Amino acid sequence: MNNASISESDTVLVLAGGVGGAKLALGLAHVLTPNQLVIAVNTADDDEFHGLHVSPDIDTMMYTLSGLSNKSLGWGITGDSQKALSMLARYGSEAWFNLGDKDLGTHIKRTQLLNSGWNLSEITTSLSRSLGVYHPITPMTDDKVRTFLHTNHGILKFQEYFVQHHHKPKIHKIDYVGASNAKPSALFATALKKAHSIIICPSNPFLSIGPILAINGVRELIRKFQGPKVAVSPLASGQAFMGPTTKIMDELGIASTSMAIAELYKDICNIFVIDESDADHASSIRSIGISPYIRKITMATKRDKITLARSICSIINNHI
Amino acid sequence: MNNASISESDTVLVLAGGVGGAKLALGLAHVLTPNQLVIAVNTADDDEFHGLHVSPDIDTMMYTLSGLSNKSLGWGITGDSQKALSMLARYGSEAWFNLGDKDLGTHIKRTQLLNSGWNLSEITTSLSRSLGVYHPITPMTDDKVRTFLHTNHGILKFQEYFVQHHHKPKIHKIDYVGASNAKPSALFATALKKAHSIIICPSNPFLSIGPILAINGVRELIRKFQGPKVAVSPLASGQAFMGPTTKIMDELGIASTSMAIAELYKDICNIFVIDESDADHASSIRSIGISPYIRKITMATKRDKITLARSICSIINNHI
Repeated sequence: MNNASISESDTVLVLAGGVGGAKLALGLAHVLTPNQLVIAVNTADDDEFHGLHVSPDIDTMMYTLSGLSNKSLGWGITGDSQKALSMLARYGSEAWFNLGDKDLGTHIKRTQLLNSGWNLSEITTSLSRSLGVYHPITPMTDDKVRTFLHTNHGILKFQEYFVQHHHKPKIHKIDYVGASNAKPSALFATALKKAHSIIICPSNPFLSIGPILAINGVRELIRKFQGPKVAVSPLASGQAFMGPTTKIMDELGIASTSMAIAELYKDICNIFVIDESDADHASSIRSIGISPYIRKITMATKRDKITLARSICSIINNHI
Repeated sequence: MNNASISESDTVLVLAGGVGGAKLALGLAHVLTPNQLVIAVNTADDDEFHGLHVSPDIDTMMYTLSGLSNKSLGWGITGDSQKALSMLARYGSEAWFNLGDKDLGTHIKRTQLLNSGWNLSEITTSLSRSLGVYHPITPMTDDKVRTFLHTNHGILKFQEYFVQHHHKPKIHKIDYVGASNAKPSALFATALKKAHSIIICPSNPFLSIGPILAINGVRELIRKFQGPKVAVSPLASGQAFMGPTTKIMDELGIASTSMAIAELYKDICNIFVIDESDADHASSIRSIGISPYIRKITMATKRDKITLARSICSIINNHI
């Protein structure tokens, strides 16, 4: 590989899901300029509630980068209430999907623009700017891709599995319906061709990163990508930072270790960042052709996020 | 006219707009059973905001009868906030039309049901029941009728005139677009044929009652209606209880008096209830063939509303 130092005109392409992805993206947004970053976000968790289009991962990303996000939950808007949802419940609507009142402003606006013929990319750019977010967030695709989980409770849509059933059902198969015919969004497609480097966030490999990689041609483009490709492990000491990552790994018969994640990503990354607590995985990771880096990858504070982001950029810059 | 006493199987048809109509309707709902009442409500003020269908007069009626309404405003829901609207404003949407968060639950549900093929009548029945309102509220029509005001600020939609411009522009002409081709809703049509008596609420004659009467065939059916037809003046001492009634009367060259209202309604009412302060109009009203009744028609308290409703039912019962 050639000298990989990130210049002012270089773009770093970031693949991200919701909460975990947004943490690292927030750090990167403090280290890189808006011109240097493209954040491609999973939209296979999108769904329609009460006739409104909800893009949970994009919203988490927008709210996090704008400083609006509820810090304790990691999603939603700080200081929000659920008055509209309580009325919808009175009208007999299912109300298991949390929708705050401020948050509904986003869903109402997005739905109105979708119905006016805007695509999700255009909407995301417009809403982000309105919230003061200038680092480009793009949906992975403007086409409809939806994650379906085959479980012991039947086939569930993502939000049914994740929110309604609290990710308790056992998964034996995951479908990213629509992915093989979907095209990457314009910004994502350009970044896939012209990026200086790629960062795969510590998001859930199956529920967040999986759908992005499943879009027609994406995994192949990343496989062939010649620059630095950094994945950050979503596990530390065999535990996920959040959500059902290790539970799903167990159900799918995969050891819940950072090494196993590196195996899943071995064709699409050449750098793998693991937690200090997983330092003993470094040599096995190197043995499958990936350069391991050991860092503190838990991101409890904003300082942690910026430190990890800076560290990853430094790894990229030093990657020969 | 024959003996007019309201029996258990008789229906009293009420024509109403928003706030003023809802006050009397609340009183009537305490005096008559759900089987004895049909409340036909103006929908010419309906509009779409942020892609959501808003029916302000129906909502005011539902919220008032359910006890949810904001007592000090007369419209909207008590204890509501405007968090969603503040987000919509951040996204660059016009936010001059007040939409509370709880209130948005109603608009979201209505829009979802409209998009699923329900008509406004079916939706109004369903939402009312959910709020514990069993006295039938029906939109005047399921067709689209919209009030347009020709003013010195150009042609304005109702809400533009009323809310955005605070009903300041001078009106020289009012159009109820769509009314002449609209059909009364099913409940309204049945009541127009089978009602025992009709009550015209003290709503704005031009903005609330006018559109109802303009629906194809409605004014003619009421004109021919043989039972008691009671109108309640929206004025006392030449002042409207609320809103721009007298201002509009001035602009249209009509004296702003209860007598002038009686003139406007002379073909469609045989009983006209005026305020104690307008007692001197009684003989002129009688001179145009309408029986005047003098009552306290201001409805400041719930007790006032029930007292006036009971009084009107008593007038109907005694009308020979």
